[in-house]
Amino acid sequence: MSESDQIHKVVIIGSGPAGWTAAIYAARANLDPVVYVGVAKQSPAIQLPGGQLMLTTDVENYPGFPDGVSGPQMMQMFQKQAERFGTKTQPRDIVSVEFNSDGPHKLVTDKDETVYAHTVILATGATANWLGLENEQRLARNGGGVSACAVCDGALPMFRDKPLAVVGGGDSAMEEATYLTKFASTVYIIHRRDELRASKVMQERYLSKPNAEVKWNSVVEDIKSTTNEHGQEVISAVVLKDTTTGELSDLEVGGLFVAIGHTPATGFIKDSGVTFNEKGYVQLDGKTTETNIPGVFAAGDIADDHYRQAITAAGTGCQAALDAEHWLGDRDLI
Amino acid sequence: MSESDQIHKVVIIGSGPAGWTAAIYAARANLDPVVYVGVAKQSPAIQLPGGQLMLTTDVENYPGFPDGVSGPQMMQMFQKQAERFGTKTQPRDIVSVEFNSDGPHKLVTDKDETVYAHTVILATGATANWLGLENEQRLARNGGGVSACAVCDGALPMFRDKPLAVVGGGDSAMEEATYLTKFASTVYIIHRRDELRASKVMQERYLSKPNAEVKWNSVVEDIKSTTNEHGQEVISAVVLKDTTTGELSDLEVGGLFVAIGHTPATGFIKDSGVTFNEKGYVQLDGKTTETNIPGVFAAGDIADDHYRQAITAAGTGCQAALDAEHWLGDRDLI
Repeated sequence: MSESDQIHKVVIIGSGPAGWTAAIYAARANLDPVVYVGVAKQSPAIQLPGGQLMLTTDVENYPGFPDGVSGPQMMQMFQKQAERFGTKTQPRDIVSVEFNSDGPHKLVTDKDETVYAHTVILATGATANWLGLENEQRLARNGGGVSACAVCDGALPMFRDKPLAVVGGGDSAMEEATYLTKFASTVYIIHRRDELRASKVMQERYLSKPNAEVKWNSVVEDIKSTTNEHGQEVISAVVLKDTTTGELSDLEVGGLFVAIGHTPATGFIKDSGVTFNEKGYVQLDGKTTETNIPGVFAAGDIADDHYRQAITAAGTGCQAALDAEHWLGDRDLI
Repeated sequence: MSESDQIHKVVIIGSGPAGWTAAIYAARANLDPVVYVGVAKQSPAIQLPGGQLMLTTDVENYPGFPDGVSGPQMMQMFQKQAERFGTKTQPRDIVSVEFNSDGPHKLVTDKDETVYAHTVILATGATANWLGLENEQRLARNGGGVSACAVCDGALPMFRDKPLAVVGGGDSAMEEATYLTKFASTVYIIHRRDELRASKVMQERYLSKPNAEVKWNSVVEDIKSTTNEHGQEVISAVVLKDTTTGELSDLEVGGLFVAIGHTPATGFIKDSGVTFNEKGYVQLDGKTTETNIPGVFAAGDIADDHYRQAITAAGTGCQAALDAEHWLGDRDLI
């Protein structure tokens, strides 16, 4: 770097609940934060500025909105609040990083700009894995009954007393499916093999529900949709293919929940020296948001494969900003 | 307990951001949560339903409210949201508990009612510490110019253009004192040592104000009061003792703000078997909200003396509900 290069106090990468909350707190502490809204698009994750909430039509569990709020609207309010206190928003992706324990850290944008920062908050989140079907994304984005998060969306009125399908065979699929049995007429787990990967206790918990079923040796080949009484396109059935016979059949459902895991958006820091846990998420130090690299913090789903809620991500975004502020203060950098 | 006693799946004690968020998540998971809004009043804490936010006029850093929101209004929205999904609110304090590792747990209200629960979420928060001087509480309760929250009370007309004292030396003392410089003729930080514990940036932010002063090596020995034109008892001066010489002197002030930390509201669980950390806060297991007692979880400031923000408390409230849900599921209690 040259003498004339500006070194930011805090650069935040990612623009979901964690990133914007970090920005609100950093801005109010006069740290002049800059938010880079995304990271380079990476497979299989669909990386969105605003995070997974951009795919959520109706957020009912973020505290403070008794009547619910749409995901994109909520992210707009977060951004407005961050900018009100002086956050600068850069509509750029960060494509590569060079973290230096002696600081400052170097980041490169998708326009090949170089950015320097004393502290970096990683908040690029994780993205749900999808099936890759043609109308899956459209139905997911428009509240058409396709979702990758039963805990977020399962309690919505549109799913009440309807048959619902869950794709997956692991513990989270069991968990999502079990959760849905409270609302659905019947829940169908759709699984490509003849046995589940999930732990026995999780399987049993699901299978003990009177309205729990499993479609073995089945994969979803297609999603059928119809127009509801509000003129909205909604799912009507999934087309199942039997993996042993190849036979196709329709299964009428009012909702499809894809539960085949998440992928943390860590592609841009793969070779940065940041330590990951066994699942590929950023490893944090104890209850703080500190990574193994001095001055580099992580918040939200990029470091959390367990709770993964908007409110928990926002909470850790706040923590990351406070941790970064202390870190800077301790080194007389503010 | 008798056969006819109802055992709740989840009882939440406390009604700040952590308690209501736990309730939102527990209610949406059909766990029929019951919120007991407070715990028995305990010294030195003044325990408020709704938590510390009930004393906060303007919350600007809770994400989702770009134009700010008042603390009580925000807590009302949280409560409304929790109740919308079926949370039952009990306007009662819990005065004692009997936690049983084999469950269920037993709670007793201030009306001597007995409540049973498979899981309990402790979310009673923390409250401001006081100096323990004779007339401090009387002046605080009767609007006599003594307060533990500058942000809540500092803007009142009675403090305008008056000299004001702030006791403390940490970051929150700096924050409160800096805030008061907007209204006061002079702000005096009164600190027992010859250097502040606060971070450098917070100190500098305060000291850069033209009407900011510090009384070093000083403690408040007494509060003097007078009767104002409305016949009301109000503070007129603090008696300072020099910690090096022992000398006493009067400092005329129109207000005294106590900023010497917080105490977790744990009186009702002191002998319950719950493990506390060295500072007296509830000790949690790793990154979860689990206490050492099976089925007992803690969220918010009762288990956090570090971040202590509305958004972090809400985040952990969500975690506690999800942790409780898993715990119940693992034991076939839902």
